Amino acid sequence: MKWTLAQRAEKMNPSIIREILKVTERPGIVSLAGGLPSPATFPLDAFAQACAQVLQADGRAALQYSSSEGYAPLREQVAQMLPWDVDPAQVLITSGSQQGLDLVGKVLLDPGSRVLVETPTYLGALQAFAPMEPEVVGVRSDEEGIDLTDLLTQMGQSPSHPEDGGLEEPDRRRLLQLDLAPDLDPAHGMPRFLYVLPNFQNPTGRTMSEARRAELSRVAAEVGLPLVEDNPYGDLWFDTAPPTPLTARNPEACLYLGSFSKVLAPGLRLGYVVAPKALYPKLLQAKQAADLHTPTFNQRLVHEVMKDGFLERHVPTIRALYKAQRDAMLAALETHMHGLDVRWNQPDGGMFLWVQLPAGLNAMELLPHAVERGVAFVPGSAFYAGEADARAVRLSFVTSTPEQIVRGVAALAATIKAQLHAVAHGPAAGSLPRAA
Amino acid sequence: MKWTLAQRAEKMNPSIIREILKVTERPGIVSLAGGLPSPATFPLDAFAQACAQVLQADGRAALQYSSSEGYAPLREQVAQMLPWDVDPAQVLITSGSQQGLDLVGKVLLDPGSRVLVETPTYLGALQAFAPMEPEVVGVRSDEEGIDLTDLLTQMGQSPSHPEDGGLEEPDRRRLLQLDLAPDLDPAHGMPRFLYVLPNFQNPTGRTMSEARRAELSRVAAEVGLPLVEDNPYGDLWFDTAPPTPLTARNPEACLYLGSFSKVLAPGLRLGYVVAPKALYPKLLQAKQAADLHTPTFNQRLVHEVMKDGFLERHVPTIRALYKAQRDAMLAALETHMHGLDVRWNQPDGGMFLWVQLPAGLNAMELLPHAVERGVAFVPGSAFYAGEADARAVRLSFVTSTPEQIVRGVAALAATIKAQLHAVAHGPAAGSLPRAA
Repeated sequence: MKWTLAQRAEKMNPSIIREILKVTERPGIVSLAGGLPSPATFPLDAFAQACAQVLQADGRAALQYSSSEGYAPLREQVAQMLPWDVDPAQVLITSGSQQGLDLVGKVLLDPGSRVLVETPTYLGALQAFAPMEPEVVGVRSDEEGIDLTDLLTQMGQSPSHPEDGGLEEPDRRRLLQLDLAPDLDPAHGMPRFLYVLPNFQNPTGRTMSEARRAELSRVAAEVGLPLVEDNPYGDLWFDTAPPTPLTARNPEACLYLGSFSKVLAPGLRLGYVVAPKALYPKLLQAKQAADLHTPTFNQRLVHEVMKDGFLERHVPTIRALYKAQRDAMLAALETHMHGLDVRWNQPDGGMFLWVQLPAGLNAMELLPHAVERGVAFVPGSAFYAGEADARAVRLSFVTSTPEQIVRGVAALAATIKAQLHAVAHGPAAGSLPRAA
Repeated sequence: MKWTLAQRAEKMNPSIIREILKVTERPGIVSLAGGLPSPATFPLDAFAQACAQVLQADGRAALQYSSSEGYAPLREQVAQMLPWDVDPAQVLITSGSQQGLDLVGKVLLDPGSRVLVETPTYLGALQAFAPMEPEVVGVRSDEEGIDLTDLLTQMGQSPSHPEDGGLEEPDRRRLLQLDLAPDLDPAHGMPRFLYVLPNFQNPTGRTMSEARRAELSRVAAEVGLPLVEDNPYGDLWFDTAPPTPLTARNPEACLYLGSFSKVLAPGLRLGYVVAPKALYPKLLQAKQAADLHTPTFNQRLVHEVMKDGFLERHVPTIRALYKAQRDAMLAALETHMHGLDVRWNQPDGGMFLWVQLPAGLNAMELLPHAVERGVAFVPGSAFYAGEADARAVRLSFVTSTPEQIVRGVAALAATIKAQLHAVAHGPAAGSLPRAA
């Protein structure tokens, strides 16, 4: 039997991360790879009570079909949690924020339409958009966030659409100084949106500074560039809360995606989209067609757990745990990478830290050697829309304990040393004996 | 701010059924409209025990991210439940079987590719496929299922692709007699698949006969037409189980969709796809991009509930309840439609019954009058890919009690009589006084 696949199926690929995790999830391996929240943070008792309460109070409704928009009291809770004026009617409950990305792609992306992303960016977003066959364009980013000069360059100049008309350098400078909006043809030249993850970004752990947010917000409004703001990690700050979301600055021009995966539990698959009125009906129709609605029971469970300000007591305990684990990782990097040309950043929250290997090393090639020494990580090259940085490594500090983290970083340092030696003296010297 | 929508967004529409339900879900209205399983059948105690057990035994794993394929023990249960030889590796757990349809559309449908459906067919499938912009072609169907002569006609002749080459009548006859497979160009002429709901179909309640299944299976194999078999209602038989699934007859040429919504509870959003090895990897990648995985907790709950043969005890109670309600509806139709030119079928299971209004009436126009008299239904025209039957009505016998069903059918009969009178004597005579 011949099944004919849709052309878009060619654009779909297995997640390289999930493939790596399959290989590296062996007993005894310290995983600094996966982005799994620490299961120690899951509020088991609160969920057990909520299950009993929801089933007892209104169990038959909790197990019945329900509205595609989501459970009204949960939509109200979401609207109240957010730090700008959100109408619950704008909140669409999704099956994890990953589904939000799928719906955004369906509603906003045609084959060939351009979408801008940070460099690097969240792999799951690239995967969610891929079936809609957009042209994904990476915008240079630094420790403060997206590079606005490169953003305007990318907006004005598309290699595959030279007819769109580029921005002249003086225009770009003036625009950055807020003198002028560029004369872009919105039908062709304008990317459908910029996808950004401003808080403790996956994979880099970077946070967009207040200054950069203010500037991006202003520039996006001037040129009419819609923003899709993904914020799964924003609540996981360690010392001070991150700056105000981009969406709060211009709600009609932004789509906002949130998640309960990192503050309660990912296994419930519960997230939400806050959409401007211009987009909500189409997102809702896409949601209805995709899975009718998010599980009623899960929505009522989370609503029940969150009643009476539970998150205000619970989330600080997650912050404290992850901060201690980040500190353990930073200290271990200081100790074990000493004398090696390895660089890393110091995330102010979230789950990830971004490492640069010494010149001459390649993270993908390093991985099997690291696994042999008992530690796993994700090569940073997984997270690029275009040309990848082969020396980048994503380390997660949330899944493992401080002791495991120290052990893992030590093993990573040993692997790097061995590989540097191998590079300098030929492969045989640096290879570990392999089992047959 | 100008948001530019994807072209496919034009193909998305609000569900007419959900729009109707919003209007008709008023207190005092008997709903014969929605396809909501009777909440009386939801096994609350079993779920309460399963929640406690799952959280106690392995709560942290139940609340964690998990594999995109689904929970392995649940995949094994599904494989064992099915009446043909299914490898658990072929089972993909989905967020309701509606998501199965979404994934099928993504992986198999290009813009303009043809997909064949029954006439009428499940509205949710039309909605799930619509964003992929296929050309949906309705195939004539009767009480025994899909009309094979029309199937071959539709396969050979596409009005918008005349170059595909039609089948000559003698070829069609010979093919039906199994003498010859037609010479269709698989790249252009061949529809991507036929979507069928052989058991107690939504909306008609019809079941495809054994003879028709055997013939369809044979013809599909000969011409190389893949089948997508949707079976959410198959377990809800009243007297005898329906014939063997189409997929059991040719597993490599069929995709099979199942659901726990009708035998346990729809609010968990739990379904599955059984896919041939040629398709599984792409469906899995589409699943991963769509929502990472189906909620871990829900999968473990259903696995826990189903242990020790629970469904073998539970499903017969649903069958008995729905059979009594179907009988109440049939009896009420006999009584109240007496003397009216109204026809209906006698479903052997499932949730729906299909009614034909008297000549001159239109179900969509009848609906507001029926609601005024206290009963709601779904106009059958919602379920057609092409030209609709304006006189068709879908009645659900599962959501309401026998007493409510009798009251609802009586109100429907009174509405029909009044409308027939209005048609005969002018609109004023048949209208009820309306509140200002």
